[in-house]
Amino acid sequence: MRTVKAWAATSATDPLTETTIERRDVGEHDVLIEIAYAGICHSDIHTGRSEWGPANYPVVVGHEIAGTVVEVGPGVTKHAVGDRVGVGCMVNSCGECAACLAGNEQYCPKQVGTYNATDVDGTITQGGYSTHVVVTEDFVLRIPEGLALDVAAPLLCAGITTWSPLRRWNVAEGSKVAVVGLGGLGHMAVQLAVALGAEVTVLSQSLKKQEDGLALGATDYRATSDETTFTDLRGQFDLIISTVSAPLDIAEFMSLLRPEGTMVNLGGPPEPFAVPAFSLIAGSKNLAGSLIGGIPATQEMLDFCAEKGIGSQVEVIPAEKVNEAWERVLASDVRYRFVIDAATI
Amino acid sequence: MRTVKAWAATSATDPLTETTIERRDVGEHDVLIEIAYAGICHSDIHTGRSEWGPANYPVVVGHEIAGTVVEVGPGVTKHAVGDRVGVGCMVNSCGECAACLAGNEQYCPKQVGTYNATDVDGTITQGGYSTHVVVTEDFVLRIPEGLALDVAAPLLCAGITTWSPLRRWNVAEGSKVAVVGLGGLGHMAVQLAVALGAEVTVLSQSLKKQEDGLALGATDYRATSDETTFTDLRGQFDLIISTVSAPLDIAEFMSLLRPEGTMVNLGGPPEPFAVPAFSLIAGSKNLAGSLIGGIPATQEMLDFCAEKGIGSQVEVIPAEKVNEAWERVLASDVRYRFVIDAATI
Repeated sequence: MRTVKAWAATSATDPLTETTIERRDVGEHDVLIEIAYAGICHSDIHTGRSEWGPANYPVVVGHEIAGTVVEVGPGVTKHAVGDRVGVGCMVNSCGECAACLAGNEQYCPKQVGTYNATDVDGTITQGGYSTHVVVTEDFVLRIPEGLALDVAAPLLCAGITTWSPLRRWNVAEGSKVAVVGLGGLGHMAVQLAVALGAEVTVLSQSLKKQEDGLALGATDYRATSDETTFTDLRGQFDLIISTVSAPLDIAEFMSLLRPEGTMVNLGGPPEPFAVPAFSLIAGSKNLAGSLIGGIPATQEMLDFCAEKGIGSQVEVIPAEKVNEAWERVLASDVRYRFVIDAATI
Repeated sequence: MRTVKAWAATSATDPLTETTIERRDVGEHDVLIEIAYAGICHSDIHTGRSEWGPANYPVVVGHEIAGTVVEVGPGVTKHAVGDRVGVGCMVNSCGECAACLAGNEQYCPKQVGTYNATDVDGTITQGGYSTHVVVTEDFVLRIPEGLALDVAAPLLCAGITTWSPLRRWNVAEGSKVAVVGLGGLGHMAVQLAVALGAEVTVLSQSLKKQEDGLALGATDYRATSDETTFTDLRGQFDLIISTVSAPLDIAEFMSLLRPEGTMVNLGGPPEPFAVPAFSLIAGSKNLAGSLIGGIPATQEMLDFCAEKGIGSQVEVIPAEKVNEAWERVLASDVRYRFVIDAATI
């Protein structure tokens, strides 16, 4: 066991505080990572505040981790000391089921989340708001040269979450894609879709971030508060990726799709969507969901980002600002992802 | 113009009555068909009773038409006098848009329905509860030898409507498919999925038609009124095709899908579906709709049915029983499709 520094939530209502936690010894197939940066994802707040069920306090959240390998177990073949690496939303799975064998570990019934989950040894996992983490090598990603560790960190969740649906629904040269919401996920969806060759429109509540959206590569930016958006863009898109957690008028968005088009929902509003049957039947349309992505897809995405020079737009903060950062995430006051400098933990 | 016999609805509330209507002269690319059988589809009743908006009375419905070519225009190349042919839900489209060029005429904005629609010449189309119909050759399908005309008629709507999603979602040897509801559409979905190599389960309100379902090739038949159905079959299916118009608990059905599985809805309940975001996100699932199918796909389905010896299970009735048959359709009292013998019209 090794005692390392971390910032933890100790209850659903108290601010995060500085503390220490234990990390397991480096086992046969383990990698010890010195964390350089940890991104702040809205899910961290949901878990830290027990909004997705009661958390195991104290809980150290963070599943957008980038750092350097400082020790490896004797059986490790995929990573070496000094490698630049990342860890995302998962740290383990059964490795044997159909989902795991297909590289879709996110669907494995025994998948272990990076924090607040029970690992195979019975311990509760603790995430990236910390100086070090020990992870089994299969769940450690290579961060290619050319991708800075701070802009790479958010790719481990926001990047793969938007990459998966773009790939699954075959976005390529000539595709027309709309991205709903320009936040942590949305700003990645725009960049990745553009780099895949798509013509991208941002659909945002207002035009406040229009300049940013166009700078990220979108060719059109429309306000959903303006009703003409829905008449002008009717039947235009092959794929709509919604990154917002607000309730949406699904029928209105479905009307923007081409025949056989797909709307992928990544956000989790508390109320169910109201979906008229004929909004799906007319034009044979799909309303889909998407859950992060598997380890092979995550590596593919990181390699693609390095090749295309894509990263998250980040605001690096010292650990002592984490509580303030959470409040700003809730107020959508970040362009576009906070990243904690782990040297300040 | 040619005067032909037909059965028409004259108002939303009166019974259908015997009448005559005018069919256009056989034009350059037209085919005159002597109708042998016309299937009765629930949509006929919706239109006849103005449940989908006000109908143009008198309206002759029927879009499951099988018969024989008795005259062709001078420019017709695809069909000849004596050919066994069918007509489905469409009788025209623009022929030039992306949808038409892709053989997806059902998505053409100028698509003309077989009845109660405005044709390119400005006349209102009249459907198959009649002795003859004139249709442009591109919307006339070949009915292969070996497919009897009575069992072929319902394939033109019920067949293609269930064939399209089976093909689009790549059902093949090894697929696991569930069919919700064993009626006109459901009994076709079961037969087609089985013939494509799938293992098929019927999900019906009760076990009343269990024997029929198994005889059609399903290997399992479960009652949705039995809660254990949803626990036993959790995560089992690649594709669920719902043929019912009753409100469904979508989250319950999504839980029966494998990761990345699809539930296709063909029925149109009046109330929107309530779809929790996480029922889609967990397992990256899809809720899709599907609208009939294009002309090339319809021909493919007819050829497949002939090859595999598949047809609709029909109850042939004389025209004078059509009002009674409509009542029995509404009471789900038909196994599995009424077909009007046009010789009795």
